[in-house]
Amino acid sequence: MAIYQVTFLPDKISIAVEKGTNLLEAAREAGIGIGSPCGGNGTCGKCAVKIISGAYEIQDAFHLSAELKASGYVLSCKINVEDNLTVEIPVQSRMTKHKVVLSEKHSSENEYFARYKMNPICRKYKLVLSKPDLADNMNDLDRVRKTLKKDHGISDARISLRCLRALPEAVRQGNFEVTVTVVKEKEGWEIIDAEAGSTDKPAYGAAVDIGTTTVVAVLLDTETGRIVDQEGTYNRQATYGSDVISRIIFAEENTDGLKTLQDAAIDTVNGLLETILERNGLKPDAISAMVCGGNTVMIHLFLGVTPSYLRREPYLPAAISFPTVKASEIKIGIHPDAPVYTIPSVASYVGGDITACVFAIMPGESEELNLFIDIGTNGELVLGSSEWLVTCSCSAGPAFEGSGISSGMRAMDGAIDWIEIDPESLEASYRVIHGGKPLGICGSGLIYSLSEMLEAGIIDRAGKILTKKESKWIRIGREGPEYLLVDGSESGTGRDIVITEGDIKNLLRAKGAIFAGIRTMLQQVQMEINDIRNVYIAGGFGKYINITDAVRIGLLPDLPEEKYEYVGNSCIQGASIGLLSLEALTGMEELANRMTYLELSVGNQFMDEFISAIFIPHTDLSLFPSLQ
Amino acid sequence: MAIYQVTFLPDKISIAVEKGTNLLEAAREAGIGIGSPCGGNGTCGKCAVKIISGAYEIQDAFHLSAELKASGYVLSCKINVEDNLTVEIPVQSRMTKHKVVLSEKHSSENEYFARYKMNPICRKYKLVLSKPDLADNMNDLDRVRKTLKKDHGISDARISLRCLRALPEAVRQGNFEVTVTVVKEKEGWEIIDAEAGSTDKPAYGAAVDIGTTTVVAVLLDTETGRIVDQEGTYNRQATYGSDVISRIIFAEENTDGLKTLQDAAIDTVNGLLETILERNGLKPDAISAMVCGGNTVMIHLFLGVTPSYLRREPYLPAAISFPTVKASEIKIGIHPDAPVYTIPSVASYVGGDITACVFAIMPGESEELNLFIDIGTNGELVLGSSEWLVTCSCSAGPAFEGSGISSGMRAMDGAIDWIEIDPESLEASYRVIHGGKPLGICGSGLIYSLSEMLEAGIIDRAGKILTKKESKWIRIGREGPEYLLVDGSESGTGRDIVITEGDIKNLLRAKGAIFAGIRTMLQQVQMEINDIRNVYIAGGFGKYINITDAVRIGLLPDLPEEKYEYVGNSCIQGASIGLLSLEALTGMEELANRMTYLELSVGNQFMDEFISAIFIPHTDLSLFPSLQ
Repeated sequence: MAIYQVTFLPDKISIAVEKGTNLLEAAREAGIGIGSPCGGNGTCGKCAVKIISGAYEIQDAFHLSAELKASGYVLSCKINVEDNLTVEIPVQSRMTKHKVVLSEKHSSENEYFARYKMNPICRKYKLVLSKPDLADNMNDLDRVRKTLKKDHGISDARISLRCLRALPEAVRQGNFEVTVTVVKEKEGWEIIDAEAGSTDKPAYGAAVDIGTTTVVAVLLDTETGRIVDQEGTYNRQATYGSDVISRIIFAEENTDGLKTLQDAAIDTVNGLLETILERNGLKPDAISAMVCGGNTVMIHLFLGVTPSYLRREPYLPAAISFPTVKASEIKIGIHPDAPVYTIPSVASYVGGDITACVFAIMPGESEELNLFIDIGTNGELVLGSSEWLVTCSCSAGPAFEGSGISSGMRAMDGAIDWIEIDPESLEASYRVIHGGKPLGICGSGLIYSLSEMLEAGIIDRAGKILTKKESKWIRIGREGPEYLLVDGSESGTGRDIVITEGDIKNLLRAKGAIFAGIRTMLQQVQMEINDIRNVYIAGGFGKYINITDAVRIGLLPDLPEEKYEYVGNSCIQGASIGLLSLEALTGMEELANRMTYLELSVGNQFMDEFISAIFIPHTDLSLFPSLQ
Repeated sequence: MAIYQVTFLPDKISIAVEKGTNLLEAAREAGIGIGSPCGGNGTCGKCAVKIISGAYEIQDAFHLSAELKASGYVLSCKINVEDNLTVEIPVQSRMTKHKVVLSEKHSSENEYFARYKMNPICRKYKLVLSKPDLADNMNDLDRVRKTLKKDHGISDARISLRCLRALPEAVRQGNFEVTVTVVKEKEGWEIIDAEAGSTDKPAYGAAVDIGTTTVVAVLLDTETGRIVDQEGTYNRQATYGSDVISRIIFAEENTDGLKTLQDAAIDTVNGLLETILERNGLKPDAISAMVCGGNTVMIHLFLGVTPSYLRREPYLPAAISFPTVKASEIKIGIHPDAPVYTIPSVASYVGGDITACVFAIMPGESEELNLFIDIGTNGELVLGSSEWLVTCSCSAGPAFEGSGISSGMRAMDGAIDWIEIDPESLEASYRVIHGGKPLGICGSGLIYSLSEMLEAGIIDRAGKILTKKESKWIRIGREGPEYLLVDGSESGTGRDIVITEGDIKNLLRAKGAIFAGIRTMLQQVQMEINDIRNVYIAGGFGKYINITDAVRIGLLPDLPEEKYEYVGNSCIQGASIGLLSLEALTGMEELANRMTYLELSVGNQFMDEFISAIFIPHTDLSLFPSLQ
């Protein structure tokens, strides 16, 4: 059997494969993530790649615009390798890299560091030890401890066995000068590393946000608080299910399913860390501590704890506050004795990511009523002030992340993020992220669509497409009535970009769940929408949201735009602050304890609110005075 | 090639071997330790076994008395298997089993438990959890913690990751009844095990004495304090060197030498635990905590920490207080999350074994001056009262354990432990432990020898054999002048049992070092021998010692016999008390800190005392008034 070399650009990753190997398969083997939501059927068009050189065989017909085909584009799922190939993966097909969305607040200058002094959980100390003799024959460890106490006020430090094994040589190689790395244990400090002599390298820490879809890692110099580097990627668990429930089911129904998902999470995090370490010329041992935020299911899977009972009434997690483990215990590729902290959850569906976000974003001392909204795969809400906090989770579904929407995609290059519909012709104008031909619609584009379609009379307030209206843009497609946003001849995939009635239903359910959640929480504390002083919007999706349109469709409460603030990936901010301040790490624990979880499935209140909220904007228009 | 079955009695262990296999080799393969100090040359006679049935071939001539040969005895190192064999290993040839010497004080009734209440470091609690529903959706871990606090006053218990992984199933299998095992961490408690429903099994703990020569393990029911079982064996490190210095050298000079010695120690401990567990129908997980005592070198090796700098001036250990590790970290075959505590040392050559002994034996509150002596491979001394304690180590060498003495052996069956020499004929009468023909002389026998030889005028006070004396019992042997104690025709090995001038020199150095150590400590605190109220003698050797004769040769100070007390293996007692009482474990740490270490190699005082003490009994006879 002939063997051919396939080289993928722009990463220049090569792999040797047998003649006839499917190109998408070859990319997977090479560890390159190419999106293929349709599962390799040649229908979604999302695995398009450009053949730069070499011969191939078209295994099957596929759908792609003539223009793209002419430029050398093919669908990788339908191509067999017949020669040495050089293949370029265009940005919209790549799954590997995600932009890390950090708010500008993220620096040691920001208000959280005004609240919390730099007091990092990992440090390096250069120690000059007294030289021993027969009259001063104190053992190595106590000699280190004594200097650590005298010079740096760290008393009763423990030592890891691994470090104790290295200590005698390090001390003598450095002629009784040694640099030790100490980390905060639950109670007290632990010495985890000893280097001969003095080193100018700081103690690095990693803050990690383990999202269901995206995982982000940030490397911090814990001495100065400086962000050294950051990297994001898709969660490798995604191939086993796109949301938490499907992953729980995968873990239950497959032999070693839990282990497979844990490995995928660990591999994802390790992949990010490797990239960052390599780029900065650092070794794994350089990272001395890690703080992770993630939803409750993600943390269960990350630690290899069964999440089974999270999806069965009464929806119990094994824990909401997890043991701090050593990196080596779960094979995280940093210093083996580095502590890996996970930020505690509030409940099954309000995770440590929310604790971290709220801690980083909502001013703890404010007596005003604030609302925090994270719209991701789930919608998590937190309402309250310095005195009390209520939180809940509404199963909004991943519609705003583009999932379950026929032309949906995440907010990345090629996505339509803005739409305007001409009320006469009903033709849409649109904007594509970073220009070029559109590949699909992302969350903010979907919000515009709803709002514009209602405005133009294409849909009614219940989300029904008014097919009686005569227009080339309204038609009956394979799945029923649909609005044609972009003709296939204009799209980057060669396929029509449409919004179906089914898509609209999914969007209304998603926005209705969020709004109903907000209303239910307010009723619980007997307050009104107008009592809310600030609304903080988190999550990657929030960045592209237009508040006016989100209010117009009834997703967000009808409040003046200046009350809204977009806060970016605040989970990674919380995790970072936790690395840099012991008090913040403790503060997050206290915060998680302080939040009262509201289980929406208890009682009828939420369901009543939900039914009223799946209209545009709502059945009760008095809640949206600005729209009247 | 024919295969034969060899069955070893009394253990009834069988092994299949090829025709022609050496019998000593077969025993080794079967995991049976047979002593063979000469390395299988057929000269030491210590591997004698009795053939009960079956044919064999004598590979080579060997030295054994006609009588023994007639009884079916052969030297296993010179026998080849030619048939199915049944072989009895007499007790004096066995290396595997050692009698565990525990003082009668060792029970929960004794004075240490009057001082320290039962407050074990590992416990099992049966918990009846409240049943969850949507209104009470507390997570599993907090549900357990809440009940643990409410019913047993254990608050803020951590959980190991391993146990958290098992918790959800255990809780549900037991229908919200669960038995948890909690252990004391440095700060607070940790839950390490969760069993479904309720169990009546107690939490077991293991107390282990890691001696240079002998390792002893005791299994305790930590609920009642009852000794369930115990087992002793030789330290498998012994094949790499008989004393701590030779083992340090082995660790340094061999590739993976440290690892080899660590593995040997771990294997030894695991072997004991396996025997005990099997005998009691228990699984490794049943043991939830371990407390170890050992000298500083042994603990370094046990934990895999280099002891190199312990033998180089200024003789620094890596640590004297060691990190508590999880059993799985060092592959100890008990519950993987069980904490393994090591009792802290005082200095390089005063180890945690001494801390444990002194803690268990010397009444902490006594204002009287007490002296503690442990004569093993080293001689460790502790002098003091409730107000202060001084300790030192004198390099006595292992002479009293029979090592370095031509006919020396440990105090076991076949050893001469008592001698009387007829002043006229110069012929010795002797007693053999458990009767039968003598194989060698143990420590107490050696003390009698010195004393009796001096009395009979065979040696002078400097230990020189007076060869001018005409007697068949005094002669010039291969290594110079020697006293013939037992003729080969009367001995169990068929070889002469002699005491050479070289042996006497070794014994005088050993006893001189101990006595000089005592004198040096007394001088440091400006006190006299007569100020000592009680003398506690520890170590296996101490059991057989005759105080009068030990005083007569100048090994022990000239004090009335009633001031002496033999205290057995008090290290294992200290370790046991540590398992059963948290306060005792802390108390031993405090004790180790409280002992002032006297480095005998600083200054000339010890050397001056030593030179005076290598006479029988001493150059200054006024120190031995009872002998005048």
